[in-house]
Amino acid sequence: MNTAPDPADVVVVGGGIGGLSTAYALATAGHSVRVLERAPEFAEVGAGLQMAPNATRILREWGLLDEVLEAGVTPRRLLFRDALDGGELTHLDLDDEFVRRYGGPYVVIHRSDLLAILVRACERAGVALVPNCQVRDVVTGPDGATVHSNLGDYQGALVVGADGLRSTLRAKLSDDEPICSGYVAYRGAFPIADLDMDAGGLQDVVCYVGPGCHLVRYPLRRGEMLNTVAVFKSPAYERGEEDWGGPEELETAFAGACEDVRKALAALWRDRRWPMYDRLPIPTWTADRFALTGDAAHPMLQYLAQGACQAMEDAHCLATQLGDAGEPDWAAATKRYEAERTERTARVQSTARVWGDIWHVDGIGRLLRNELFRQRDPRDYTYVDWLYGQ
Amino acid sequence: MNTAPDPADVVVVGGGIGGLSTAYALATAGHSVRVLERAPEFAEVGAGLQMAPNATRILREWGLLDEVLEAGVTPRRLLFRDALDGGELTHLDLDDEFVRRYGGPYVVIHRSDLLAILVRACERAGVALVPNCQVRDVVTGPDGATVHSNLGDYQGALVVGADGLRSTLRAKLSDDEPICSGYVAYRGAFPIADLDMDAGGLQDVVCYVGPGCHLVRYPLRRGEMLNTVAVFKSPAYERGEEDWGGPEELETAFAGACEDVRKALAALWRDRRWPMYDRLPIPTWTADRFALTGDAAHPMLQYLAQGACQAMEDAHCLATQLGDAGEPDWAAATKRYEAERTERTARVQSTARVWGDIWHVDGIGRLLRNELFRQRDPRDYTYVDWLYGQ
Repeated sequence: MNTAPDPADVVVVGGGIGGLSTAYALATAGHSVRVLERAPEFAEVGAGLQMAPNATRILREWGLLDEVLEAGVTPRRLLFRDALDGGELTHLDLDDEFVRRYGGPYVVIHRSDLLAILVRACERAGVALVPNCQVRDVVTGPDGATVHSNLGDYQGALVVGADGLRSTLRAKLSDDEPICSGYVAYRGAFPIADLDMDAGGLQDVVCYVGPGCHLVRYPLRRGEMLNTVAVFKSPAYERGEEDWGGPEELETAFAGACEDVRKALAALWRDRRWPMYDRLPIPTWTADRFALTGDAAHPMLQYLAQGACQAMEDAHCLATQLGDAGEPDWAAATKRYEAERTERTARVQSTARVWGDIWHVDGIGRLLRNELFRQRDPRDYTYVDWLYGQ
Repeated sequence: MNTAPDPADVVVVGGGIGGLSTAYALATAGHSVRVLERAPEFAEVGAGLQMAPNATRILREWGLLDEVLEAGVTPRRLLFRDALDGGELTHLDLDDEFVRRYGGPYVVIHRSDLLAILVRACERAGVALVPNCQVRDVVTGPDGATVHSNLGDYQGALVVGADGLRSTLRAKLSDDEPICSGYVAYRGAFPIADLDMDAGGLQDVVCYVGPGCHLVRYPLRRGEMLNTVAVFKSPAYERGEEDWGGPEELETAFAGACEDVRKALAALWRDRRWPMYDRLPIPTWTADRFALTGDAAHPMLQYLAQGACQAMEDAHCLATQLGDAGEPDWAAATKRYEAERTERTARVQSTARVWGDIWHVDGIGRLLRNELFRQRDPRDYTYVDWLYGQ
């Protein structure tokens, strides 16, 4: 197939949350944008995700917050409990004071609902969405870049690599590989009516933290669905086995947990799982007319629930640096984007690792963690100001 | 030798700090007391020890506090620092507010000075001090007890076993053995003038806590001496070797510590060392006319600096329960002593272990410990009220 579609200002490789956010932000600023997606549809697998105010402020600016709020849930609190004894450790109120402080609400939403909102928004903004497109390479020079794909070549003044954790385009800038944490996530999103479960207390995002494991659950879709994520360190991975993190390890990993947590395992899919990877920060995301964004630029462990949020910050920043349509200095603007974003995302990546270690600590460390959490004033925002703040 | 000395009301086996405190407390209440000590002299090996208000209140009641204050030092603060980076973590002011709150000062004193004060006090109170006395057994019955020794038999209405961590008399009540922690202490007490060292900041008890190691130092003898204790987990012990904790392990154990700590190792004796042991709490300290006290009853790890203090609490309690001279109900009084003391000392023993774990934690636990310590309000007495309070 040697079609030669019209050149676009921007070609985005990858139609996930990050890629579509970038496409939408640039299209509404007046740029012509094309998104190339490998899969046959623009859709997300997975369950819920969390949008902190640093993302919802952007969604409001983009005019998408109302749709997100309608499809999602604004939980009452982030509540931490000890996974072993179930005891409450600390919480963050997500109330009016929180919303005022950070200029946006905290929302949880099904990934597929968020993606559908972004797809519709892109369509409204005139973004060209190209499915079934396998990108083979990007060739970039001082005046533009070309994407080679199974559907032909696509020209752009700028190409954005938004192809996720296992980004092939990142190889243009770094030879690093994803780093396996040895942890695996099981997820599940079910109508609450279908679960034999007390729905009490389900207005919170509850995080049970335990030795080598944790479980998070929260409501989705106006509280009609329950979202559950269970994460544990795989003994088989520790032993160096190829096949690790299977469902036979799940029950054992939570055998010492409190009854609420053990019961909650019933609300997980057993036929898929997500091994947890990240990468180390890299200082360079851009080359001529090419820039990385989202997980392709800064994949992170999920402990701060910032994967989608940081991808939206990327999109917002890149659009701001490029400015409104016309003839931007593409190379200079992407360099400014890189300069603004790399330090912050590196901090999120490294803090996510530490935060995971804090959740999963055992023994005397657990005792110290619990004491520190219990002593925390719920109105102390020290730990989140840097992340959620303006 | 088959001498037959006069019977005493109380025969105390062991002339250390605990035995002499018991002897003094009972003698001043009017009982006739004899102390049997294995060594040729009533003396202590070792360096400094700490006397918290729960002990100094008793010393004041006994009329000995002024002598202790004159021989010792009242430090300004208990100061905790991280052994690796040297950073300050938290402190407890030992100022007027502290003294008012707990009804007594915090004092550090050389062990030999404290023992000398107790020896003189016992002599003034008419206690018979018997050195070179190897106790072979105690035979107790409903009407009294007999100590069999190399110097003959000693009769008493009550025999007190104050023979320390490796108590032989404890075997009458429990078949447990000392439990090795795998940690070893090096100590040193030197005139500050002899040390090539900046004496600044030496008005504090400073505790540097680090992964698998810690170092404590404080002034002695009106600030003319420096007392240092360095404690570390022995790799040779971990490997199961017979000979462990030797001086060749000392430098290695502190190789990662900050310069202040590494320099402080110069102020340690290298020719002796103290492997650290404790035992688990036992519920029974008494049998007919026999009672355990001090380390023989409840040996503890030194992390709360309460060994001598708890022995003094034992002495004070036993004297209170026996009441003034006359014909006490010896068995009932010792049972009341046991009932009052076992729960508290068990808590001190188990808390000392946890406290040591907190000091020696590594990795993410150290990060949490440091954060918890740094956040502590210096005027928060939660952690010490139960221990130092009335």
